[in-house]
Amino acid sequence: MNAQISAGTNRTSRRRIVVIGAGFAGMAVVHALRNSDADITLVDRNNHHLFQPFLFQVATSILEPAEIATPIRSLLHELSNVRVEMREATRIDLRRRAVLMNEGDPLAYDILVVATGAQTSYFGHELEWSQHALGLKSLGDAVAARNRLLRAFERAELEPDPMKQARDMTAVVVGGGPTGVAITGTISELAQRTLASDFRNIDLRKARIVLVQAGPRLLPAFSERHSAYAARALEAQGVEIKLGAPVTDVDATGVTVGGERIEAATVLWCTGVEGVPVARALGANVEPNGTVAVLNDFSVPGHPDCFVIGDAAHVVGRDGRPVPGLASVAQHQGRYVGKVIAARLASATPPKPYETFTPSKLATISRHVGVAEFRGRSITGYPAWLMWGLLHLRSLSGGGHAKFSILANWARLLVTYRRSGRLIVEPSELVGRRKRPEVAEDTSTETSNVVVLRP
Amino acid sequence: MNAQISAGTNRTSRRRIVVIGAGFAGMAVVHALRNSDADITLVDRNNHHLFQPFLFQVATSILEPAEIATPIRSLLHELSNVRVEMREATRIDLRRRAVLMNEGDPLAYDILVVATGAQTSYFGHELEWSQHALGLKSLGDAVAARNRLLRAFERAELEPDPMKQARDMTAVVVGGGPTGVAITGTISELAQRTLASDFRNIDLRKARIVLVQAGPRLLPAFSERHSAYAARALEAQGVEIKLGAPVTDVDATGVTVGGERIEAATVLWCTGVEGVPVARALGANVEPNGTVAVLNDFSVPGHPDCFVIGDAAHVVGRDGRPVPGLASVAQHQGRYVGKVIAARLASATPPKPYETFTPSKLATISRHVGVAEFRGRSITGYPAWLMWGLLHLRSLSGGGHAKFSILANWARLLVTYRRSGRLIVEPSELVGRRKRPEVAEDTSTETSNVVVLRP
Repeated sequence: MNAQISAGTNRTSRRRIVVIGAGFAGMAVVHALRNSDADITLVDRNNHHLFQPFLFQVATSILEPAEIATPIRSLLHELSNVRVEMREATRIDLRRRAVLMNEGDPLAYDILVVATGAQTSYFGHELEWSQHALGLKSLGDAVAARNRLLRAFERAELEPDPMKQARDMTAVVVGGGPTGVAITGTISELAQRTLASDFRNIDLRKARIVLVQAGPRLLPAFSERHSAYAARALEAQGVEIKLGAPVTDVDATGVTVGGERIEAATVLWCTGVEGVPVARALGANVEPNGTVAVLNDFSVPGHPDCFVIGDAAHVVGRDGRPVPGLASVAQHQGRYVGKVIAARLASATPPKPYETFTPSKLATISRHVGVAEFRGRSITGYPAWLMWGLLHLRSLSGGGHAKFSILANWARLLVTYRRSGRLIVEPSELVGRRKRPEVAEDTSTETSNVVVLRP
Repeated sequence: MNAQISAGTNRTSRRRIVVIGAGFAGMAVVHALRNSDADITLVDRNNHHLFQPFLFQVATSILEPAEIATPIRSLLHELSNVRVEMREATRIDLRRRAVLMNEGDPLAYDILVVATGAQTSYFGHELEWSQHALGLKSLGDAVAARNRLLRAFERAELEPDPMKQARDMTAVVVGGGPTGVAITGTISELAQRTLASDFRNIDLRKARIVLVQAGPRLLPAFSERHSAYAARALEAQGVEIKLGAPVTDVDATGVTVGGERIEAATVLWCTGVEGVPVARALGANVEPNGTVAVLNDFSVPGHPDCFVIGDAAHVVGRDGRPVPGLASVAQHQGRYVGKVIAARLASATPPKPYETFTPSKLATISRHVGVAEFRGRSITGYPAWLMWGLLHLRSLSGGGHAKFSILANWARLLVTYRRSGRLIVEPSELVGRRKRPEVAEDTSTETSNVVVLRP
């Protein structure tokens, strides 16, 4: 197998560092090592670094993909010691120090950083539920969710059957965390404010938007006061909230929640994450949710040359609970591991043990309402939304162009409720070329007088 | 069958006007009839009006879909007498005055306007060629073309086999008209300027970009001088131009042009259009290319209540040749037919017979080079590009937000060659959820020591 292991194009004596995943954690490691004397290979299955905190705004037509994602190559093109490979790591061979790929030769490493992040978990029902309840982890997920929601409203406008029409006008969001709360609020605004006046047959002010939370309150990571505030804010927008209501079934036409059946054309799954499969390959130290338990320096016990960071790592904070899967946390870990690796490359003394930090909590509820716990202070309403928006915008890596573009979209939304991105777009390649109508498509009972298409 | 024919939700004595197609022609008709005493139903299979002249810039990552497309509903939401239906007209029953749809009941009309536009024609090889040579008529086409081009370059970066690598670095554009010329120029700039410095293994300055034209010169609708100018400008950018070279075969790995085989991972089809099938249903007056011959007032001979306009109509200009398929021409026809219908509704005297006009010819070649024939004057270079950009931008219907956004993108491109939209995005729903890696994917010859994924 060694023969299969490529050392990259420039086979040198320099150390080979492989980073899997170009999320916040992986990018932070690479930037921390930008001046190191090593050959760095960054592997990702996508060609872009995604700013996940704004993903729900793409799903709800507020922002466009290009505003929250940047090509990895353009972010790193000045780092001459970094190579970017767009392919998917499928396996890790710790013994041989090689990463196996979905295509092409395995990649040999001297030092490996696994920053593969998390993926949507359906709690064991992936096969049955994932096709009906759309996750929200990638740009593809967001575009799919947008297409489904907009298509459902278009169908409702044409639907003569009141039952089906009601179903097409119902959206269920599963998960009462920050993402679930944010997307629920923006969906209800999309229906009631942005779209309502565009339809003639249906009244989208009557669209049914349901937020389902298995636990006893929304935003469980926040204070009870903020949970209550978020619930009030959403209910004021006409959102139905179901607490203590676990999902027991999902199918093409709706969900079953706490024994109650809800007919819904759109179901979004914003609860439950798990480690990405490749991280599970690290074996013994894998938690039930697929994350990997690591040592103080984020290395895998028994494998000092293999680090796991970000959502892929199981890290416990001061409060004894796993640290939240936030961008700031992932970046903090990435920068630290970058220092660890740099010290090792220089045979210098390693940095002092990692200290977890308590990130400020920010959540947005709707167009200009949020809650925040910032340096011990509790903030709600517009100030909290503003803080959410500006703090995130600051850390957006898309550069000035994207930042400005996002600000322009937000400003317009604040003033007019208008959203530009309400497009249903599907790459022709995937849909297949629109086939020509056939005579067989004739829906009339009597065809003699019907003009028939030429073959 | 009459029972099947719905008169729309509000069954009234008002005349029912059905417009098929929300392109430039169809939108012009609807706007011309905005104050008419009639119920207008606009049917389109997409939810957006597309500004086709800029489509090639979406395919080449300069612009984003939301910048050149606007939801039909938001464009028309103030027109209270207009209903929008997102579905596809499959058949027209002239006898019964009904339009049959891909879903739902047929739509009855008193007056019908067919503005279904044109679709890519593969000259009888649709089944074999369309999947390999991507057309460029819809947003889905543009996104598919962008994905394919960017994927090919990503593969090339990883490809050890020089033959396959060269193929992945080759793009062939078929068709030397304005679209083919424009997209060829922007692809070569994308490869040589925007992307080159982002790759480590491949040198995209050496990317092979080929423009294939069956006829003897590029831009046949322009003067010979402009054809030569365009050819020189493209060749100065390193584009290969093949004139008098008809395509005889297309497959997954390349094309055969005038007996020569060109290995190419990306083949774009920018030649040949034909009427959309539903227009063919109008039978006797259909030209070989699927367009419909019409009378002076754009009505179908023998069917004064059925009008065909835009690319779907076969209209001959003063020069005895079919009028070009330009936005300005389609809008001009739409406004005229709007007057015809308005006069008929008011039982007034119809407007004087339609007079074709000679639109100014504008073509863009690359970032800031173009050719124009404008009011008899011949312009080349940057002034022509500027005229192309500003004249088109003026007629963009996206509103100030989109216009400004486009200007910002162009300005940045002019100054830095940077493009924001270099994202490979495919809706998860269509690609299917990324399946978990299986042990079967192991590419090693010996697996005993390979850490195996947990089931």
